[in-house]
Formats: sequence, C-alpha cells, structure tokens
Amino acid sequence: MDFSILIKKEVREKEGYRADTVPYRIKMDANESPFSLPPSLKKKLFKEMLEAFLNRYPEPGSPLIRKRLAEYYGVASDMIMLGNGSDELIHILCTALVDSSAVVMVPVPTFVMYKIIATNCGHKVVEVPLDASLDLDLKGMLKRIATDSPVLTFLSYPNSPTSNCFTEKSIEAIIEASRGIVVVDEAYGSFTGKTCLPLLKKHKNLVILKTLSKVGLAAMRIGFLIGQSRLVRELDKVRLPYNINTLSQVAAGFYLDHIDVFLEQTKKIVENREMLFRALMKIKGIHPRPSDANFIFFSCDFDTDNIYSLLAQEGILIKNLNSPGILKNCMRVTVGTRKENGEFLRALTKIVSK
Amino acid sequence: MDFSILIKKEVREKEGYRADTVPYRIKMDANESPFSLPPSLKKKLFKEMLEAFLNRYPEPGSPLIRKRLAEYYGVASDMIMLGNGSDELIHILCTALVDSSAVVMVPVPTFVMYKIIATNCGHKVVEVPLDASLDLDLKGMLKRIATDSPVLTFLSYPNSPTSNCFTEKSIEAIIEASRGIVVVDEAYGSFTGKTCLPLLKKHKNLVILKTLSKVGLAAMRIGFLIGQSRLVRELDKVRLPYNINTLSQVAAGFYLDHIDVFLEQTKKIVENREMLFRALMKIKGIHPRPSDANFIFFSCDFDTDNIYSLLAQEGILIKNLNSPGILKNCMRVTVGTRKENGEFLRALTKIVSK
Repeated sequence: MDFSILIKKEVREKEGYRADTVPYRIKMDANESPFSLPPSLKKKLFKEMLEAFLNRYPEPGSPLIRKRLAEYYGVASDMIMLGNGSDELIHILCTALVDSSAVVMVPVPTFVMYKIIATNCGHKVVEVPLDASLDLDLKGMLKRIATDSPVLTFLSYPNSPTSNCFTEKSIEAIIEASRGIVVVDEAYGSFTGKTCLPLLKKHKNLVILKTLSKVGLAAMRIGFLIGQSRLVRELDKVRLPYNINTLSQVAAGFYLDHIDVFLEQTKKIVENREMLFRALMKIKGIHPRPSDANFIFFSCDFDTDNIYSLLAQEGILIKNLNSPGILKNCMRVTVGTRKENGEFLRALTKIVSK
Repeated sequence: MDFSILIKKEVREKEGYRADTVPYRIKMDANESPFSLPPSLKKKLFKEMLEAFLNRYPEPGSPLIRKRLAEYYGVASDMIMLGNGSDELIHILCTALVDSSAVVMVPVPTFVMYKIIATNCGHKVVEVPLDASLDLDLKGMLKRIATDSPVLTFLSYPNSPTSNCFTEKSIEAIIEASRGIVVVDEAYGSFTGKTCLPLLKKHKNLVILKTLSKVGLAAMRIGFLIGQSRLVRELDKVRLPYNINTLSQVAAGFYLDHIDVFLEQTKKIVENREMLFRALMKIKGIHPRPSDANFIFFSCDFDTDNIYSLLAQEGILIKNLNSPGILKNCMRVTVGTRKENGEFLRALTKIVSK
C-alpha cells in the first residue's frame, strides 16, 4: 500500500518533532518550572482530584475555569477558550482559518510549533528573520503583510528562544496593518511585567495565548486563549468537546485558588535568572542576553555541539540551538533552582576553560 | 472586523457540538461506565499520581503505554499511537491526509464527530444511509468508493447510536475496495466479542481506534489507534508532542495493571444491558434493538421529544435522537447500574402508559 498518495506532502517530507530523550540528572532544556508544589499543597490538590468522577466525561468547555480566568484577567468569560496546552490552541487557530493554503507569518527564530502545526494544516509559512538586535524586522513584516496578507501571525512575547520582549510599538504596528489575526503568545508572560492584554480593547484581530506550563503545571497541559467573543465563538466550534480532562480542570482551579504560591515561585525564578545571568556574563566566551523569560539565551565562542555533549555527560540537559545563521553556536538554558544553576555553571566553566 | 473573511465557510456556517448540560440525577446519555473504581483502588491510583512531577512536561509519545498496549494486543509498539481521546485521533487522521478537500465517507447514522471533525478540516463528507436493518448499505458504499474514492472511511463497530456490529464481510469488502484508509472505531468493542483486529495482518489500509472512555476512565481522555507502522509514523508527525498529560499516562498504566477489575465491570454492564433490553421489550410502544454496546437504541410509538423532557424532569438524562428519517422518535440510553436502570424503566413506563 502506497501511503504517499494519502498523506499530505507537507507531512511526508518532514521529520516529526522530537523532544530530547537522553538520560539526565538536571533538566534545564524545556523551560519548565524547577519547583514542585510544597508537599502539603500537593496533597491538597490530589485530595481534590480524588473527588472527581473518573468514569464520567470532563465538563465540556471548562465553563467554571473560563469564568474564573475571565475574572482574573478582567475580561468576559466568552472571550476565553482552554486548550490541551497552547499547542492545541495553535492547531485550532490553524484549522479554523479560511482555505488550507493560507499564509501564516512568523519571525525566526521563534517557537517551532507555529511552523510545524501550520505546515501540518497545509498552510504556507512565511518566515521573517529577526533583526541584528533580535527584535522584529518591522519593515520586513509590514512588507509581507502587504504582499502576502497572512491570515495568522504568531509573535512570542517574550520570544523563545531569544528570551526578549519585542518592541511593543512594532507589535502594535503589525496588528494594525494586518487584516488577519495576530496571535501574541505570552507563554512566558509571568516572568516579565509586560503584556499585550490592554491592546485587546483596541484591536479586534488580536488573540493572546497563555499557559500554566511554565509556572509549575506543565504535566497538566493547560493553555488558554483570550480574544474577541465573536472570534472565540468560531474557534470554539473547532475545539474538541472534551479537550480538557477532568483532573486538568481541577488543577486549573487549584492554580487560581493558590495563585500566590505559584507567583512566589515565579518571583524566585526571576531572582535566580538574574543571578544566573550575572554568572554567565563572567564566563569568558559566553555571551548571555538579558532575559524577560524563565530561560537564558546565550551565544558561545565555542562549538556548542561539543558543549551540549559534555554537559549531557554530566547529566545536565540544556537546549542546543546551533544551526547556520543567527543561531550559530547558540544555546538556551532554563533557569533552575539555585543548586541546579550552580551545578550547571560549574560544569560549563570547566568545559569552556579546558 | 469581519471575521467571516478569515474563518472557514464550513466552520462559520455550523453550530458547535453541544453536550447536554441540563441538571440531572441519573446520567444515561453519554455512554460512560456507571461504575467508579472501588475506593481502595482509586486511592491506589491517586497515590501513584502523587509521585508524578506536575512541573515537568509529560513523557512525549507515551512510550511506556504504547509498549504495554502493544503487548496486550499482540502488535508492535510502533503500530500504536495515543490520543487525547479518540476525538484527537480522528482530528489527526483528518489533518494528515492529502489535500484539504478530500472525500471522507461515513454511514449514517453514526458517531457525529467523524463528520464534524472532517468538515472542520475542510473535507467533503459523503454520507451513505444504513439499510433498513441498520446494517451497512454495502452496494451504496462500494459505489461511492468507485466514484468518489474517499481517502478516509469511518466505521463505528459496534455503531453508535444504533448499537449493532455491522456485518464483518461488508466491512472487509469496503476495506478491500478502498484505496483510502478505513478506520474501524471499536470504542464499544469491550462490550462485544467482535473485533476487526485480526484483519490488520491482511489489510494495510485498516486502522483500529480504541478508547478507555467507555470502560471507566472517560475523565482521563485516553484513546489509541492501531495501524501499520509506516502509516502510524506519518500520523505521529501530526500528533502534538505532549498530547497525553502525565496523569492520563499514569491512569492508562493503572488500567493495564488492574485490567481484571475493569473487565469485571464491563461484564456487569453486559449483564445489566441484557436485563434492561428484556425489560424495555416488555414496554408497549417501545422497540429496543439487541445491543453489542453499553447502550440500547430504541424507537418509540410516541413523541420522544416529550419523553426526553419528562425523563429530564425526573432528573434522568438519556439521548434523544429524534430527527426526520431513520431516527424519527428514536432514543439511546446508556446502561446504568441496576438501580439506575430500574429508575429509568419505572419513569419511562409511567410516561408512556399515561
């Protein structure tokens, strides 16, 4: 049987997304929170979960969580939709859009799933490289808006893997020029004071993505989207009815009940980030960028394939971004606990001073 | 802002899927298992879950669960892929397929999500009505295969909402005639001895869907697909990397550890089904069909809109299928506990004998 006549060319020709699966002792590659819940709180969460009916389908559409998130963010609850991680929300956006060969625009480098999902859905992806300061190439993007009229533009704010917030003026100019939807992905928004949420009132074509994955609940896959009710109503038709499982809904409610604990952890991560940044600055040949996120992006005067392997030998996993162009000999390290950051810094120093 | 220029016509023109959200006392509308886990076992499960790292992403691709399911079903582990419920697997199948205006074939009536998801993805859905005995119209389907060459055909086995298993010979004839993929959805397979799994060896274009949603774990959203490794490898590229959350992976492992308990519950549901069927047969004007699933399909000599409302007033929720044609005055009731079945029967008898 020749599956090639059945499977989309875009899918056949590519490799699947592969998360690293090498063994590790210290995991600093996936931008997760290094902090578990305090044991007493974790027990409380599981006690709440124990009340759930596992034999019953989850509440479709997670109405209670939508309502509570809406209150928290000061928007109407029909402006919110939950996804099985932001990934699913990106997939829903790409599925709901007019005609399958639409243009989706992204800056590069950015979160890789935008391109992967858009391509899976058969869309044409237009990539506009960041400028030398790793900010948006506003001119370049406006030009592509004029010529290609993208139905979707994804902007990660702060941007992964470069860790910076793009200039807000540029983002607003892109939103204003676009006839399509502009998605501002604030997955890392908790680690900076900046947010495009206030722009929602002014711009009907803006959609904000948020997630609990970076603030301590990556295991539960809880992402959400905020946008105009009229748009959310359309996107919601594409959402699979039971996409958020019962225990994830419990976890989302628990997050809101105990948000002070999670925010305290976030604050600690930001403190650790600044310490890690200063320490990296002191290592010769390592050039970290100031970060608005829970990770640090740095370039090296050395071959990062080698650094990656030697760190892995020590059981320390970080992200090697090395590829021709702007990411040549670049790496991304997630902010860990003080102890983890210390071990990473010692190992890195040892490697590069050899 | 005119969203209509951005959202697919197929999406704009339809209503979203709406699960019933009326208040109820007895829930017999969604084909869930009526049984919770025994309390000691439920505690054991949550103790296992408590070990999970909630701040870390789930294991991508659920390799351990794939391996264990593969052993259980006697297939290679690269023939298996997990989904956030079968819904997601249907979405993945529809996304991975060549060109977005492909033809997807389904018999009607059947599980509504096949059509909803295929339409969301921009495919053309060809519906072939079941014959008078609620079996496949083999001639009709072969004709559409010849003229429309569907890239995907969905067959629910047993079929929801009609509760019967289609003739296996017809299914095999459809698989043989198809140049596309034929998906046999065995969501209700646990309640019958029948399965198309052995056909996998003979037919490369066959894909089987299974789920833990009907056997006691609907809350956890665990579906899986079994097919040729070469095909699964392509589909896996479209799967979102972290689609199965950590606690669902724990629950799937727990299911396999304690499968005897779940099978015992399944057996009890089958016994209750037979009792419920015999009791429904005795009610004048109610015409139940023998069932291979965990629900009973029946037609009524009365207006089922009225029956539905009066049952709902008693706090009993069942599925009203009433629509012009083959489903005129038809209903579907999920097999409950003996007590629930008894209450339902008493209420129904009272309503129809008025």
